[in-house]
Amino acid sequence: MKKIINNPNAVVEEMLQGIEIANPDVLYDREGVVIARKEKSDKVGLVSGGGSGHEPAHAGYVGYGMLDAAVSGNVFASPSPDRVLRGIQLADSGHGVLLIIKNYAGDIMNFEIAEELAGMEGIEVDHVVVRDDVAVAESDESTGRRGIAGTVFVHKLAGAKAETGASLAEVKRVAEKTIENVRSFGVSLSACTIPAVGTCGFTIEEDCMEVGMGIHGEAGIEKTKLKPSKEIADIMVNRILADKDYGHSEVAVMINGLGATPLMELYILASDVHTRLCAEGLKPVKYYVGNYMTAIEMAGASCSILQLDEELKRLLEYPSNTPAFKEIG
Amino acid sequence: MKKIINNPNAVVEEMLQGIEIANPDVLYDREGVVIARKEKSDKVGLVSGGGSGHEPAHAGYVGYGMLDAAVSGNVFASPSPDRVLRGIQLADSGHGVLLIIKNYAGDIMNFEIAEELAGMEGIEVDHVVVRDDVAVAESDESTGRRGIAGTVFVHKLAGAKAETGASLAEVKRVAEKTIENVRSFGVSLSACTIPAVGTCGFTIEEDCMEVGMGIHGEAGIEKTKLKPSKEIADIMVNRILADKDYGHSEVAVMINGLGATPLMELYILASDVHTRLCAEGLKPVKYYVGNYMTAIEMAGASCSILQLDEELKRLLEYPSNTPAFKEIG
Repeated sequence: MKKIINNPNAVVEEMLQGIEIANPDVLYDREGVVIARKEKSDKVGLVSGGGSGHEPAHAGYVGYGMLDAAVSGNVFASPSPDRVLRGIQLADSGHGVLLIIKNYAGDIMNFEIAEELAGMEGIEVDHVVVRDDVAVAESDESTGRRGIAGTVFVHKLAGAKAETGASLAEVKRVAEKTIENVRSFGVSLSACTIPAVGTCGFTIEEDCMEVGMGIHGEAGIEKTKLKPSKEIADIMVNRILADKDYGHSEVAVMINGLGATPLMELYILASDVHTRLCAEGLKPVKYYVGNYMTAIEMAGASCSILQLDEELKRLLEYPSNTPAFKEIG
Repeated sequence: MKKIINNPNAVVEEMLQGIEIANPDVLYDREGVVIARKEKSDKVGLVSGGGSGHEPAHAGYVGYGMLDAAVSGNVFASPSPDRVLRGIQLADSGHGVLLIIKNYAGDIMNFEIAEELAGMEGIEVDHVVVRDDVAVAESDESTGRRGIAGTVFVHKLAGAKAETGASLAEVKRVAEKTIENVRSFGVSLSACTIPAVGTCGFTIEEDCMEVGMGIHGEAGIEKTKLKPSKEIADIMVNRILADKDYGHSEVAVMINGLGATPLMELYILASDVHTRLCAEGLKPVKYYVGNYMTAIEMAGASCSILQLDEELKRLLEYPSNTPAFKEIG
């Protein structure tokens, strides 16, 4: 295992300490293993989180215009309900709290228990479940599609809506609309190692890629020979358009790196996805190219396509100021 | 070679096309292989560049508050003088142009020839040479220290100064002060592959790291067993403080990933560097943690420490809006 770490069993805590040091607008709550805004804001609170190893998700999205708190589990492990409860408490300013959960059985169970516990404390909590990954209709880890990089759009758009002073119901409506409108698909070129385990749980042969692999290394649809970027773009767009009819609408596109893929490759892929989307009659109006939702040091990329309407487009342009996502309004 | 690309000999052009598609404020000038601001601004122009493979450097730093144009060579190869000349022409608005060159013999030669050619066209051009890497006092590729991630601070601070309407001489003074005040040091954990070559030119054994390796895989000081993050932080800080006396001043710190290193590890390293800097009596006031100057898909990281004074601190906070560096003022 070749990593710049100290103790494989303390990577999450040491990382969160680093995030706190580097970003003066957030605090690291050690009790809850939560990154939260230092100044509580007077609005609906947004909480997300899940297993660690997907950095900058989710702690990197805590700040103005996005999340109020991000709860961290161990690497690829769901955070316990008490951690999520702590996140809810830190995010609550009396206007209610929305939980943004990626669709994994463990996350859903733990976030829902926390929601119930918070309710007993008199905090109004609701939740949405992101299921953007069209690779698998069902999996061992999820009922229905898994939640992957499209989740960042939910943070962004629900976060912007909350910032405008909207009610919990309104923020939830925007989150649900975003979830309804976004689909993702990824390919993996290499495996990744959980620090506390020390070895890869799976391998991808030197000249191969795994099509549709999940962000924890869950099996995809097939292993194939590594293909050129144009063909990878075709696979991604084909799969996404087969799942959802975007018509000729405007879309925002995220080309997301899984951790070890250079920006050079992500931009080449973005160019190929763009060519294909335009040929299909879609209108890409905004691109996000970079590492938004990773799988530790996995090589590979995912493509997320979000159908826009006037409301979502306006919220996408709303300013945000978080460690990993800055939008200058 | 496992990369998401199409033609190994066209990676730079296809990448720049992707950058143009994804970032509506910049244009890709195909003649010069240059990324430039779409709207020319009425101020001193700033041009940087060099070999590709260091993304987001340098094209990702073109935009408000930083560069006006970034010139791309092939991967790890200096751009030709005609490309640099084209960058100068695109950046010039009649107030003169400053070239920010990393200290490599090829870059210096080609940028200086372009400077001379531009002078013959009546464009006032001057240049600075960044030499922040304290790993080697001399190398095959450079006379004196090499230029690495500290260069991004020069883009930022000279860029901010130019945006205030300062003269070429004043912008150059700020660039020179930044160069004087910044030092960097890196370690590499794995090699990288130039697409057009197809194989790694060197290897780093599974349990080893190369201390002081350059961002093109140039030999470092020594190969050692991979050490814990705290010890890597010590090596970096020791080397930098041995080269420059920071006193007890305020500093900005960049923990830069070389391409394949997860953000998790960079934040752990940031935390360890911070502990050490505070123990030395330095006052870190701002951190930048992420991939700023990479070596394709090399694993590893560098640390850059910039001594601040009131002027540099103020310029650091100046707004910037580029694909890879957004500062909300």
